[in-house]
Amino acid sequence: MSRHISEQYDLELGAIRDQLMEMGGLVEQQVQDAGAAYVTHDMSMAQEVRQRERRLNAMEIALDDQCVAIIARRQPAASDLRNVIGVMKAITDLERVGDEANRIAKMTLQILDQGIPAHQYGDLRGMHQSVIAMLNSALDAFARVNPEAAAEVIKADEAVDDAYDAIVARCTEDMSAQPEEIKHLLTTIWVARSFERIGDHAKNMCEYVIFQVQGRDVRHQSKSSL
Amino acid sequence: MSRHISEQYDLELGAIRDQLMEMGGLVEQQVQDAGAAYVTHDMSMAQEVRQRERRLNAMEIALDDQCVAIIARRQPAASDLRNVIGVMKAITDLERVGDEANRIAKMTLQILDQGIPAHQYGDLRGMHQSVIAMLNSALDAFARVNPEAAAEVIKADEAVDDAYDAIVARCTEDMSAQPEEIKHLLTTIWVARSFERIGDHAKNMCEYVIFQVQGRDVRHQSKSSL
Repeated sequence: MSRHISEQYDLELGAIRDQLMEMGGLVEQQVQDAGAAYVTHDMSMAQEVRQRERRLNAMEIALDDQCVAIIARRQPAASDLRNVIGVMKAITDLERVGDEANRIAKMTLQILDQGIPAHQYGDLRGMHQSVIAMLNSALDAFARVNPEAAAEVIKADEAVDDAYDAIVARCTEDMSAQPEEIKHLLTTIWVARSFERIGDHAKNMCEYVIFQVQGRDVRHQSKSSL
Repeated sequence: MSRHISEQYDLELGAIRDQLMEMGGLVEQQVQDAGAAYVTHDMSMAQEVRQRERRLNAMEIALDDQCVAIIARRQPAASDLRNVIGVMKAITDLERVGDEANRIAKMTLQILDQGIPAHQYGDLRGMHQSVIAMLNSALDAFARVNPEAAAEVIKADEAVDDAYDAIVARCTEDMSAQPEEIKHLLTTIWVARSFERIGDHAKNMCEYVIFQVQGRDVRHQSKSSL
């Protein structure tokens, strides 16, 4: 590319990355609010999450279109192309994180319909905080294209998986002890499962960061080799 | 592109699409065997699924690399570019379907460890057959780039979602009636959830078919407008 075209390309890609971060900020808010609405049984907060979902979907489609357009128009090679493709993949993951937040908001509304009283969800709150931190660090690593920070997030996903396993084990035990609470405990498991998936998506985004910088594909590698 | 370059491009893209179909065939087999292993408690079949998972992951990375390489080398415009991007997205979905099959195989091995006797899983078998049919039709629609067939698959996903809801409702009831079966019923719910996700991925692939042909993005549209 000539210098002029290359500068144009950088500007356009920069604008796309800015929008991706804006989408990331909205997704973080969705996860924050959906989890908080569930543990505090806040119906109006859950409804706000449901309403914002549409905006996220529109952002996804608009961003995806812009990525296709920049590839078609600028025909980037090698590392520039890896950047755009990394952004396209991150868009999909962010949208799926939004889907999980939306799923949690839906479940919150159903629980309230059933009139089940609020409980103390200690483990779930901890897991919620962990995935918010992971998502935040993943977006940060993506924005700064920092593969070391990205590798840290990938490692952190193990703790989230362990927290998930612990919640499922505890809820399963509680179900046997309190069969009348089965529906409610099952919903808690679903919410934990959504958090676990959000952690996976944050991890995916970090794998794209490493792919962008090093051009090597770290998916399916053992964590020790990162 | 000149005619010669365009023909070269078509040949290369054709080779990528052939490999995608090969990957699709392997994924179908994984879903078939994982579901069958679970409902018949066939431990060696579940282990075979676990072993083949590695081959799928290698196919995903190799195919993804080839897509990036063809974009960088051939710099396709407009509809050609949409084709490659559609293939890249389909690769991700196929790999995730493989993950779900692997998850089911893992659960099958855990169940057998617990020594729980085989049950008749009528609803689950039906759902298994439905998602296999969906996945097969989705691959077919993708191979033939047939948007009408793709739209049919997208509509079929509703029935799979309904089947999933029915299984969860039944298992939840059974848990209250037979608390000693809670762990087992929970696993059945997880397997149904994996089937439901597989249906979603098949649906995603069909959305890419429509995107490739019509260049319009049908994600997040209501089904009636398809």
